[in-house]
Amino acid sequence: MMTGTLYVIGVGPGDPELLTLKAARILRDIPCICVPKGRQEGSSLALSIVEKTIDIKDKEIIEAHFPMRKTRGQRTEHREQNTATSTHPSPCKGEGKGGGNSLYSDNCELDTKWNETVEIVLSMLTRGIDMAFITIGDPAIYSTFFYLYDRLLELNPDLNIEIIPGVSSINAAASRAGISLGLADEKIAVIPATYADNLKEILEGFDTIVLMKVHRVFDKILKTLEEMNLLNNSIYISRAGMKDERIFKDLRDMKEEDLNYFSMVIIRK
Amino acid sequence: MMTGTLYVIGVGPGDPELLTLKAARILRDIPCICVPKGRQEGSSLALSIVEKTIDIKDKEIIEAHFPMRKTRGQRTEHREQNTATSTHPSPCKGEGKGGGNSLYSDNCELDTKWNETVEIVLSMLTRGIDMAFITIGDPAIYSTFFYLYDRLLELNPDLNIEIIPGVSSINAAASRAGISLGLADEKIAVIPATYADNLKEILEGFDTIVLMKVHRVFDKILKTLEEMNLLNNSIYISRAGMKDERIFKDLRDMKEEDLNYFSMVIIRK
Repeated sequence: MMTGTLYVIGVGPGDPELLTLKAARILRDIPCICVPKGRQEGSSLALSIVEKTIDIKDKEIIEAHFPMRKTRGQRTEHREQNTATSTHPSPCKGEGKGGGNSLYSDNCELDTKWNETVEIVLSMLTRGIDMAFITIGDPAIYSTFFYLYDRLLELNPDLNIEIIPGVSSINAAASRAGISLGLADEKIAVIPATYADNLKEILEGFDTIVLMKVHRVFDKILKTLEEMNLLNNSIYISRAGMKDERIFKDLRDMKEEDLNYFSMVIIRK
Repeated sequence: MMTGTLYVIGVGPGDPELLTLKAARILRDIPCICVPKGRQEGSSLALSIVEKTIDIKDKEIIEAHFPMRKTRGQRTEHREQNTATSTHPSPCKGEGKGGGNSLYSDNCELDTKWNETVEIVLSMLTRGIDMAFITIGDPAIYSTFFYLYDRLLELNPDLNIEIIPGVSSINAAASRAGISLGLADEKIAVIPATYADNLKEILEGFDTIVLMKVHRVFDKILKTLEEMNLLNNSIYISRAGMKDERIFKDLRDMKEEDLNYFSMVIIRK
């Protein structure tokens, strides 16, 4: 029996018109849409973008759960070592033992749900059902989808998985701010701000620096940019292209409540 | 009188279905399309992508010329210094003097054409005509459009210019290669290979490195990746998503004739 195809679709940064023609065509035809379930609002956002253009009422919607961060770390390690080691989430040792601390139980519950997600997707594909996995922005830019991708191909290397690129929130933010990310020979760095241990060095070595997820470490970033005399080169953008988009050309004007999960700072020298 | 709007449209990496719904709508409605004229095939490619989806036979097509690299350099310098200095291309001193060396004459001709482009676009917008400027991939990623953007806003800061982001060739390449550019806390660097003086340092400091325009310095890149034991982490992709796409998972398999202007190497550690 023919297996189904999993279409991994970047639905763009938020504006429903930034869906590609290809994404719209596949989403119109597909009977089943898989939506990442996260603690952040990203999951519901992806579906809400699609809903504004595509009638989804007759489609099956499946919520995909993902492994804990800890497990992700292990996965990354496996990738780096280029080994074929199994990347099963760690077994839920606490199960059936009645108790344990709550963090441990949480991990366990998440891992169980992650395994369920893998099984559901695999079972539908092997029954010949085409599915779409939707993700905001572009799949290659910080989408959790690749955890599922690796796991599925590990279990069945012959699966048909087609990735449809989308407009990334980084490109959308640059458009809305009216700035180029790179011209001619310029170098671009994209870094999640929360782990920018060598931020100064990167700010020195690159022409454009895109700091993602700045909301949690904003004060620290502001201080660094001030010290390096780069505040006049910095723009804060959150929810680019959405109705509640915010752009600050002077980061000093910002208040705590202006910070948002879907935010970035672009430094353009 | 109302001025027209200049829509700057990223038409995606090559596959006509990767146009966004917004790009397709604007391009259907617009009476005039401005296409960058370059020495590379990128200009005709942008129009050929549009033509496959949109009927352009009744539209006015304008070829946009750009200043010499020399002038671009000056521009970049101005931007860096954050001055309000005029960024006029250098005047054609050779004009009317009958002669000069041929390189000088070429520069002059290009600068004249660049000035003509600026005048034509400005004149159409001020006469209330809406225009689209199309560019392959995403406008913020190495598109020459931003030279025109700066110049137009300098001449008339009140112009309506709306930038519509597109799917970048970088995201398309990652999709086609089946790799993520970044997960969780990973750092991404995008650098034009021709000026990668500190390539080794960047290869060490980042999780994913995208080398653009690799065709001219491919041997040097291959040698560096070999020395750093990164060949197993490297993929060559040219013309991602187009009919003549090429993907090499082992760079050592490549021959001179496989190299292409629309190419990149992605190193994923």
